[in-house]
Amino acid sequence: MITISVDVMGGDFGPEVAIPGLAKSLDRHPELKFLLYGEEDKCTALIAEHPKLAAASTFHHCDISVRMDDKPSKALRQGRWRSSMWRSIEAVKNGEANVCVSAGNTGALMAMSRFCLRTMANIERPAIAAIWPTLRGESIVLDVGATVGADAQQLTDYSMMGAAMARALFEIDRPSVGLLNVGVEEVKGLEEVKEAGRILKASELPGMNYHGFVEGDDLGKGTVDVVVTEGFAGNIALKTAEGTARQIAEYLRAAMGRTILARLGYILAKSAFDRLREKMDPRRVNGGVFLGLNGIVIKSHGGTDADGFAAAVDVAHDMARNDLISKIENDLKLYHAKQTIGSVQAAVSQG
Amino acid sequence: MITISVDVMGGDFGPEVAIPGLAKSLDRHPELKFLLYGEEDKCTALIAEHPKLAAASTFHHCDISVRMDDKPSKALRQGRWRSSMWRSIEAVKNGEANVCVSAGNTGALMAMSRFCLRTMANIERPAIAAIWPTLRGESIVLDVGATVGADAQQLTDYSMMGAAMARALFEIDRPSVGLLNVGVEEVKGLEEVKEAGRILKASELPGMNYHGFVEGDDLGKGTVDVVVTEGFAGNIALKTAEGTARQIAEYLRAAMGRTILARLGYILAKSAFDRLREKMDPRRVNGGVFLGLNGIVIKSHGGTDADGFAAAVDVAHDMARNDLISKIENDLKLYHAKQTIGSVQAAVSQG
Repeated sequence: MITISVDVMGGDFGPEVAIPGLAKSLDRHPELKFLLYGEEDKCTALIAEHPKLAAASTFHHCDISVRMDDKPSKALRQGRWRSSMWRSIEAVKNGEANVCVSAGNTGALMAMSRFCLRTMANIERPAIAAIWPTLRGESIVLDVGATVGADAQQLTDYSMMGAAMARALFEIDRPSVGLLNVGVEEVKGLEEVKEAGRILKASELPGMNYHGFVEGDDLGKGTVDVVVTEGFAGNIALKTAEGTARQIAEYLRAAMGRTILARLGYILAKSAFDRLREKMDPRRVNGGVFLGLNGIVIKSHGGTDADGFAAAVDVAHDMARNDLISKIENDLKLYHAKQTIGSVQAAVSQG
Repeated sequence: MITISVDVMGGDFGPEVAIPGLAKSLDRHPELKFLLYGEEDKCTALIAEHPKLAAASTFHHCDISVRMDDKPSKALRQGRWRSSMWRSIEAVKNGEANVCVSAGNTGALMAMSRFCLRTMANIERPAIAAIWPTLRGESIVLDVGATVGADAQQLTDYSMMGAAMARALFEIDRPSVGLLNVGVEEVKGLEEVKEAGRILKASELPGMNYHGFVEGDDLGKGTVDVVVTEGFAGNIALKTAEGTARQIAEYLRAAMGRTILARLGYILAKSAFDRLREKMDPRRVNGGVFLGLNGIVIKSHGGTDADGFAAAVDVAHDMARNDLISKIENDLKLYHAKQTIGSVQAAVSQG
């Protein structure tokens, strides 16, 4: 059985979007159970509209809801222990839920998740992983904005966590991993990226296939299953891609409305356009996954609708079913055991 | 009179693309004069096919052509003084040409440009500026990959150079300038970006309107005329946008070929699709501009065709006609004079 804890107050529309979203995901995964956290008077009537959801859920009233513009420090001060956001995360910590979903503000959600769940052994900083639509299907890109800057060891950690997530989400044995860089030659780019490349090559980890460097245009091509970068460049890549997609959609709309022939052509090709819209729909892959904590938290986009929220719940389901946390823990253990053996061997051969 | 020096051997196709490209740009700007550098046996017949171009050009034979895969160090060692790339840059240094255009490899072109032209007074490192198509028209984005990393002072320098280029290219008095960051609040993001924001706000330069922080999705929106970032994030943003545009074009192609109705619709809406293709055409805004050197060098995309090369020559023409170099020099002088006055005042008030 998979239980998902949900902060139904998060996002621009709170329970208005979260609750119908949960109902949609439950239709696809009838085995799911939910622990819902929110303000009773805003949720009860909405839940009653979805009898199947009501039957699969336990509701917990919370006095406090973290607001979308609350600073992380304020959210932690006022919302710790008591807010719907905190309590949904805490349910994962206490083992009551397998994974938590919230559309609440990213800064507050990350601050509370770190505070409540703590980082895994050997992991210094968590990362946010995005699911990126590509010409070959989907890739995982991390970090898209949890922290700014990363050293070689942190990039190596991100690589392992991303590979474990790819195994859980795409169900492949050895996902390919690339480090985002400027230029694919080994001499180019940031020192920490080059160093991470050397570590990954030397480590020969069984859970991933280290591909080498990739560039910005490899993201859309889907050259590798997992693209690893630090949070500043990752966030800029993510938002640039979203902006470019919206820009082209806008060009297309303008072009198709311009002449009568174009409008007629649009009508004839409407099913093709619908397919395209579906391909480009950011809701399809809604859900940033916080990695590196002792528990999985899924961040849904704050401005999404019920379909988008349901997609984030679907991701939560996949992560829990494939036991992402154990996969990451095992990989980290293996890597660090190898490192220890490596340094013992080095010490022996030097001595 | 504007004279443009051209390395006709650069790019994947060398003179086959450069020479017809020059002829196209000359049709649009009949007042242009060209100094052409290349291998005589590969160019003479091609030039003869364009009598107007032949009349407007002086050809200089060069024994050596820098190859697309030459490392910058090798290009400098073998190609200095003698290659078509070097001599086209040198023509700018000697005052024989107003601006240089090459489709040669970026690393070699930047290394030779730095070595030959040297950085401007008060500028530590040059930047590459790209012209970015937006929903509002075009913006300038720099640095898209000249150097990795930049401190607050370098970001401030880039802002001034970018603003001067916007004045030269778009003919506006006070272009708006934004610093690329993760999140628009003043508390977020990289320390050096925040520091550059404080400097730009305090400096109140007459040649720009400092807007504040922008995010990745502001690039496509055209929120500001000039977007400033360091070369790693800038290169990743540029390539991610190019990759996303290609990805969507691919989706569109696939969707339109799927059913007979869609194909019929495509035929009816063909002129609209042609307009869209034109909007998305990377050749329209082909040409990275090297800024911060004592002379302007335009890098055309290596894989472009004659139309793309002509677009790069058009950019060179606009830069020279509006005397970009003087604009940058004046802004830098003004800024550094202000800084000096500021530190004298600070010293007086402290003393």
